[in-house]
Amino acid sequence: MSPDNFQTWSNDHQRRFEEVLRHLLPSADTSPRRLHAAMRYSVLDGGKRVRPLLAFAAGELAGADVARVNFAAAAVEMIHAYSLVHDDMPCMDDDVLRRGKPTCHVEYDEATALLVGDALQSLAFQLLSEHTLNDDATRQLQMVKLLAAASGSRGMAGGQAIDTDSLGKQLTLPELEHMHIHKTGALIRAAILLGAHCGTLHEKQMKQLDHYGKCIGLAFQVVDDVLDAEADTATLGKTAGKDADNDKPTYVTLLGVPAAKQMSSDLHREALEALSGFGDAARRLRELADFIVLRKY
Amino acid sequence: MSPDNFQTWSNDHQRRFEEVLRHLLPSADTSPRRLHAAMRYSVLDGGKRVRPLLAFAAGELAGADVARVNFAAAAVEMIHAYSLVHDDMPCMDDDVLRRGKPTCHVEYDEATALLVGDALQSLAFQLLSEHTLNDDATRQLQMVKLLAAASGSRGMAGGQAIDTDSLGKQLTLPELEHMHIHKTGALIRAAILLGAHCGTLHEKQMKQLDHYGKCIGLAFQVVDDVLDAEADTATLGKTAGKDADNDKPTYVTLLGVPAAKQMSSDLHREALEALSGFGDAARRLRELADFIVLRKY
Repeated sequence: MSPDNFQTWSNDHQRRFEEVLRHLLPSADTSPRRLHAAMRYSVLDGGKRVRPLLAFAAGELAGADVARVNFAAAAVEMIHAYSLVHDDMPCMDDDVLRRGKPTCHVEYDEATALLVGDALQSLAFQLLSEHTLNDDATRQLQMVKLLAAASGSRGMAGGQAIDTDSLGKQLTLPELEHMHIHKTGALIRAAILLGAHCGTLHEKQMKQLDHYGKCIGLAFQVVDDVLDAEADTATLGKTAGKDADNDKPTYVTLLGVPAAKQMSSDLHREALEALSGFGDAARRLRELADFIVLRKY
Repeated sequence: MSPDNFQTWSNDHQRRFEEVLRHLLPSADTSPRRLHAAMRYSVLDGGKRVRPLLAFAAGELAGADVARVNFAAAAVEMIHAYSLVHDDMPCMDDDVLRRGKPTCHVEYDEATALLVGDALQSLAFQLLSEHTLNDDATRQLQMVKLLAAASGSRGMAGGQAIDTDSLGKQLTLPELEHMHIHKTGALIRAAILLGAHCGTLHEKQMKQLDHYGKCIGLAFQVVDDVLDAEADTATLGKTAGKDADNDKPTYVTLLGVPAAKQMSSDLHREALEALSGFGDAARRLRELADFIVLRKY
């Protein structure tokens, strides 16, 4: 259970999964070429692949065939990538850089970015339905429903809408939590559950796993807010980061850095407690919880 | 088989289906309210519901329970509505009016319109997966795949990308056809096949139905182009309509009105021929082909 081991495990999965994504995305030689090139640009060579790693870890816990988890992880990553492309557009966050590269609408154009996001969402559902992810087709339909609900107006897109509406407003802590449970939490939970659904777990175990997902989904956001605030503190010599500059409510603007750190540490502990019944089979999920909370970037 | 009968049939289904949509869309009282209100605004009280009518007609042919076809038809209509909301945005067609009302981004704002489209697409896949549409779950998974493929980069979104890239370019007739087979044809075919998949047809019958769908999907577009050109001819006293003004290749700009009319009439005949083996059970599909080709708006 050394950090080296986790590093090797995650690096191996990240490298392998990159090839999976390359294979599952439409080729840039296939019409419409520009759209397909832009889809590949927006998904490949980017990010820590936290959601796929969570899916693989949950799949291992549930004894799933990794070849099946690949499709579930790819579906989730397509949804995540589409949300970033759309969030970066001028009518949303108007970001020009993402993962060190120009954002999709800058590298291509706005119309293409809009269609890239739309087509990546369709691709996610195609991946979940055209391959066998579970021998029980009824279970697999539930997986489609799970991802659809996590992505839609009562999931990720809804959280994004609450976020957009909250700019310049003073949110309460429950309101902020409500937003993040939807905006980032829903898809993180879906990644974990979809990975597990490729294998076999009892319903009670699924609930424990879901509670783990809920905790680390929130912790992920709290840590993001702290990192944003502290990066600026170090590099710009002020205590608030770009979120605060954007008049965006965050855990740090609401709680301050010390209480936000305490919150992420509490959520970390609660996430690990949710895994207590699983023994060593959940080690990767534990290590991912550590990684999410203790990361420095 | 009188026109009255068809009128009654389609009016009844339209009225009934509007209630189905009202029920399946999230309530505007549910958080996030503004997003849900905008989703309802973009889907309800609008359009001829051609795709749902095709699904209902194909469902009747296949002996499907209309309660099941409702979900398939609603899923297709959510995809159609999302595509209209996104196509109307400033970075695409920049339209301010749709079905006699301000477009979504005008009535609300661009960020909301973006999220409305995203969330409607998720809702489509949720509808196809959370209800029983076929007793055979494997068949139902194929339905999810069918809609995903029809919506994505090698379907509707891809056709939209080709359209966007073709502005100001001279397309050949095969290129124009390639675009429309994707942009409008794919979803029309999906509507018909999804309706039929709620019931029982042999594979050969499915193929005939798909050929019917391919023909009327194209005819639909050719007729649209003719109507656009002729409306302007009558009202503005010039032979080319707004598509030509926009430097947009159409069947009329490529073929002229007489040859475009001949083409729609040929496609109409071919569509009816594809149904010849079905007898009276396909009467609504025949009537819908007539309606699509002979409509004046």
